[in-house]
Amino acid sequence: MSARVLLPWTDIDVPEGIGAACYDGVGAPPADLGDVEFYVLPYDRGPEPPQLIKELPSLRVVQSLSAGVETLVPLLPGGVRLANGRGLHDLSVAEHALALIHAAQRDLPRWFAQQTRGEWVREHTRSLADSRVLLVGYGSIGQAIERQLVAAEAVVTRVASRPRPAEDVRGVEELPDLLPGADIVVLILPDTPATRGLIGPDELAALPDDALLINVGRGTAIDTDALVTETRTGRLRAGLDVVDPEPLPADHPLWTVPGVVVTPHIAGGSASFYPRAKKLVAEQLRRYVQGEDLLNLVEI
Amino acid sequence: MSARVLLPWTDIDVPEGIGAACYDGVGAPPADLGDVEFYVLPYDRGPEPPQLIKELPSLRVVQSLSAGVETLVPLLPGGVRLANGRGLHDLSVAEHALALIHAAQRDLPRWFAQQTRGEWVREHTRSLADSRVLLVGYGSIGQAIERQLVAAEAVVTRVASRPRPAEDVRGVEELPDLLPGADIVVLILPDTPATRGLIGPDELAALPDDALLINVGRGTAIDTDALVTETRTGRLRAGLDVVDPEPLPADHPLWTVPGVVVTPHIAGGSASFYPRAKKLVAEQLRRYVQGEDLLNLVEI
Ligand SMILES: NC(=O)c1ccc[n+]([C@@H]2O[C@H](COP(=O)([O-])OP(=O)(O)OC[C@H]3O[C@@H](n4cnc5c(N)ncnc54)[C@H](OP(=O)(O)O)[C@@H]3O)[C@@H](O)[C@H]2O)c1
Ligand SMILES: NC(=O)c1ccc[n+]([C@@H]2O[C@H](COP(=O)([O-])OP(=O)(O)OC[C@H]3O[C@@H](n4cnc5c(N)ncnc54)[C@H](OP(=O)(O)O)[C@@H]3O)[C@@H](O)[C@H]2O)c1
Repeated sequence: MSARVLLPWTDIDVPEGIGAACYDGVGAPPADLGDVEFYVLPYDRGPEPPQLIKELPSLRVVQSLSAGVETLVPLLPGGVRLANGRGLHDLSVAEHALALIHAAQRDLPRWFAQQTRGEWVREHTRSLADSRVLLVGYGSIGQAIERQLVAAEAVVTRVASRPRPAEDVRGVEELPDLLPGADIVVLILPDTPATRGLIGPDELAALPDDALLINVGRGTAIDTDALVTETRTGRLRAGLDVVDPEPLPADHPLWTVPGVVVTPHIAGGSASFYPRAKKLVAEQLRRYVQGEDLLNLVEI
Repeated sequence: MSARVLLPWTDIDVPEGIGAACYDGVGAPPADLGDVEFYVLPYDRGPEPPQLIKELPSLRVVQSLSAGVETLVPLLPGGVRLANGRGLHDLSVAEHALALIHAAQRDLPRWFAQQTRGEWVREHTRSLADSRVLLVGYGSIGQAIERQLVAAEAVVTRVASRPRPAEDVRGVEELPDLLPGADIVVLILPDTPATRGLIGPDELAALPDDALLINVGRGTAIDTDALVTETRTGRLRAGLDVVDPEPLPADHPLWTVPGVVVTPHIAGGSASFYPRAKKLVAEQLRRYVQGEDLLNLVEI
């Protein structure tokens, strides 16, 4: 058999005539991978799986299951195509964004702390309904977040890299005008030179008191030191699944600021990812074998 | 001036020709309430405000701002009409239900605990997307919960007191058949003889392992002892805003069961309630003065 595919799971429909090997990114890769043309990277298994790319002399396609593939691009040999996992995480990330918003608006840390003391003390909270949400990043995941925000009757303003008036999307250059009117800002952006430090001291200062900043895209979008300064005083609140740096060091001040919730970059990895990922991989293999265009190709 | 209204807030539009007094349920009620015809009960202020009902000799209407008014009915003098707060809490309760679901599915207690230790340890979680949700109670609040569940791409089965096939609503007598197929059960029911103990040992036993039981209606719907038994072993999980008894005593075993989150009956009381409540009250006063039918009248 000449062509082979290297897959992270064994329960994927592989087209007839193609051999499959399995590498889950945890154990060692199988030996003798000289004929692997199509490599589906194990998801969320750290830096080892990408290193295997350079060991595959017949490689034609790398299929990542992540939406953000900025760290893979430099590893690709010339002529190898890269497809990303756009769409696979939309629901997973969107519901984690909602989890962080609800946790902050509905005071979950307070109730959890009371629970450990067996304490029944009641107080009214903020709500998500009626909140003015500035959704910065209106791509695949941003749109999934918006559907859940709208169902909760939040009032959403969409922001992307360029204005799209027909879709009521504002351009990022309008941020300074939009931030003062936001109760909640949700960042769901890729890591690019243009997004790095997008939310710095001036942007944070432009937010109204008690505003909530959510980040489920990439940690680099926020100037971490500036955020510590503005949250430490209690003026702003935050819910962060991604931070800069990652992992956040154990002694980093962000861990202990009241009003800041940090989760360790787990928004994308929930149960709903797996069936979607397996379906995409099966479809990509079918297309590959039949010579059809692949989905989700990344321009390199 | 002959007719007067007694209101919990001063910033409500009162129709011309009507006098208004204010009682917020915290301080003492104003003196000389002999001419009060329309009493809007302060929301969520304990047992004192309802006791005032019997001190109002001219009373014609009691407007509660709660959805559940079962405790008020016995206090009403003959001929006094009662209107409830149906609809005012829908979003508030619905988003708290979602907060409890997300907290459980996305392991928020775990991340909060890790945060206190500055610990960056990652693991994939359950998700809400794709989960099969049995929504028991498909009234005003149940329908608001459903909109948010559907936006998160959960798969919802609706249950109410009687089947309504045209709306795809199942009758409560089908529960035994429906429970084994539920990943998540959401209870949003009033307290009535028929709902008390609806979820007892048999119903809990019918749920699959790891199922999540959410209650944001009334605590009496669940047999608390049976729930402690089934959650203590880790077989089932729960998120409860309402419990039986309330307040939950400090030494009650439910507080400390891993996989159980308890909040102190605060689902209905969030920021989005107030503008909706004030709008309803203004509309009811307008109708009262103009002799139109009141909204939300409760059959007594
Ligand atoms: N936390 C996690 O576990 C997790 C999981 C998956 C993904 N992610 C991150 O989420 C990111 C977004 O994913 P996606 O699938 O939604 O990507 P996408 O579909 O490519 O959408 C990206 C959005 O960001 C906007 N954008 C890009 N540069 C911008 C800038 N400088 N200013 C304002 N907006 C800008 C884009 O604007 P246009 O619409 O104008 O192009 C687009 O709306 C990924 O790149 C990844 O880094 C995180
Ligand atoms: N946690 C909180 O802070 C909070 C706040 C507000 C309200 N609540 C509680 O939530 C309850 C529901 O509020 P709502 O505004 O949604 O009330 P609603 O509009 O009257 O709806 C009640 C729903 O429960 C169903 N139901 C009644 N008895 C039932 C039974 N024996 N078996 C199955 N279903 C039954 C009804 O069925 P049909 O459709 O067949 O009539 C209806 O679908 C309130 O009564 C209140 O106790 C709690």
